[in-house]
Amino acid sequence: MTIRFHKNDLPDLSNYNVDAVAIDTETLGLKPHRDRLCVVQLSPGDGTADVVQIDAGQKKAPNLVALLKNRKITKLFHFARFDLAVLYHSFGVMPEPVFCSKIASRLTRTYTDRHGLKDLCNELLGVSLSKAQQSSDWAAEELSPEQLEYAASDVLYLHQLREKLIERLEREKRTREAEACFRFLPTRAKLDLMGWEEADIFAHS
Amino acid sequence: MTIRFHKNDLPDLSNYNVDAVAIDTETLGLKPHRDRLCVVQLSPGDGTADVVQIDAGQKKAPNLVALLKNRKITKLFHFARFDLAVLYHSFGVMPEPVFCSKIASRLTRTYTDRHGLKDLCNELLGVSLSKAQQSSDWAAEELSPEQLEYAASDVLYLHQLREKLIERLEREKRTREAEACFRFLPTRAKLDLMGWEEADIFAHS
Ligand SMILES: Nc1ncnc2c1ncn2[C@@H]1O[C@H](COP(=O)(O)O)[C@@H](OP(=O)(O)O)[C@H]1O
Ligand SMILES: Nc1ncnc2c1ncn2[C@@H]1O[C@H](COP(=O)(O)O)[C@@H](OP(=O)(O)O)[C@H]1O
Repeated sequence: MTIRFHKNDLPDLSNYNVDAVAIDTETLGLKPHRDRLCVVQLSPGDGTADVVQIDAGQKKAPNLVALLKNRKITKLFHFARFDLAVLYHSFGVMPEPVFCSKIASRLTRTYTDRHGLKDLCNELLGVSLSKAQQSSDWAAEELSPEQLEYAASDVLYLHQLREKLIERLEREKRTREAEACFRFLPTRAKLDLMGWEEADIFAHS
Repeated sequence: MTIRFHKNDLPDLSNYNVDAVAIDTETLGLKPHRDRLCVVQLSPGDGTADVVQIDAGQKKAPNLVALLKNRKITKLFHFARFDLAVLYHSFGVMPEPVFCSKIASRLTRTYTDRHGLKDLCNELLGVSLSKAQQSSDWAAEELSPEQLEYAASDVLYLHQLREKLIERLEREKRTREAEACFRFLPTRAKLDLMGWEEADIFAHS
């Protein structure tokens, strides 16, 4: 596993002449208005990952933001809703277009209610992910080797998962519905930041 | 109140050279796969309404369907999610574009959790709606005068509500979010018919 570690930003975008970039974020918790962004992980899909540590109060990351803004590159997330909210809140940029492996899983793996990244990697790729570092102090000044490895592992398999899930969506003729969900995700994330994080905006009551 | 009653279809579309049509449906219950469509109500927004009784098993209604298919006419609903599912299930046509007064209310009337049509008419228009006929036998061969009046009243105020709610959305700078929600509604309705009616597809778990 090749992990490139950086502070504050990607040094350049030379590894990201790709059609899809896998992205994940680590924060101090689940509330973007309270819990700051600490780490952004990215992978171009070649088995390598960039782990970018973000400073408290950091508002700029020009290379990262340029990548997020590039609409020719699909952004692959697992549970995009959360990462979109975090990235929009931190840098004011909404990454689009989006593919979300949790939604694709919900729409295809109807035989289970386990749609965690670990479950997907396990079943679809035969890869076993450790989640031991998930709840750790991501704002630590120095990230541990275990944290770096965990952070990287959260983006290393998203390209492969996307391939498998696209096949499933096609097989079950649910590609259009998935794409409509992906298109709505930026709004869903904005509504979270605006205060509708608890509500299913589409519910009757 | 002018109510035009029809069996099976609108006689023609001469009243519907409009930019927005208000639509509501009455069914035998809340499950489209079980509970058939009984009545479709429409209003061009001039204080009159058409009430169209639909037969059991009826698959065609050419004028109605032509109106629903006309993308130049915005379809105004209260809780569009349900009516879209019913109309798509009954006639195979997805009405678009959509405005939904329940979603617009959720996004603007944040001081209350009462987003029923009755609540909206009351607060925004000073109009008091009776909901007495809501749970009645809409598959009856002959609809009562009370049913006809109730059915019509469900579409008579939607144009005025839209105006008020558009103002509120603008005032609170939430128009874009509302429009994105409206654009997703057809997919939300299809997912209901496909079996995801219980799930918030955007939830973490
Ligand atoms: N309510 C919630 N519960 C658990 N995880 C949540 C969550 N809201 C957002 N998340 C994010 O969803 C990811 C876990 O998804 P899943 O459980 O499907 O594998 C976590 O990312 P990390 O693994 O990067 O910390 C976490 O940040
Ligand atoms: N779970 C639910 N509970 C109540 N009403 C529901 C519902 N799902 C769909 N609806 C529809 O939503 C409408 C009521 O919305 P509200 O409560 O916001 O006024 C009803 O229309 P009708 O009044 O045409 O019967 C009903 O058909």
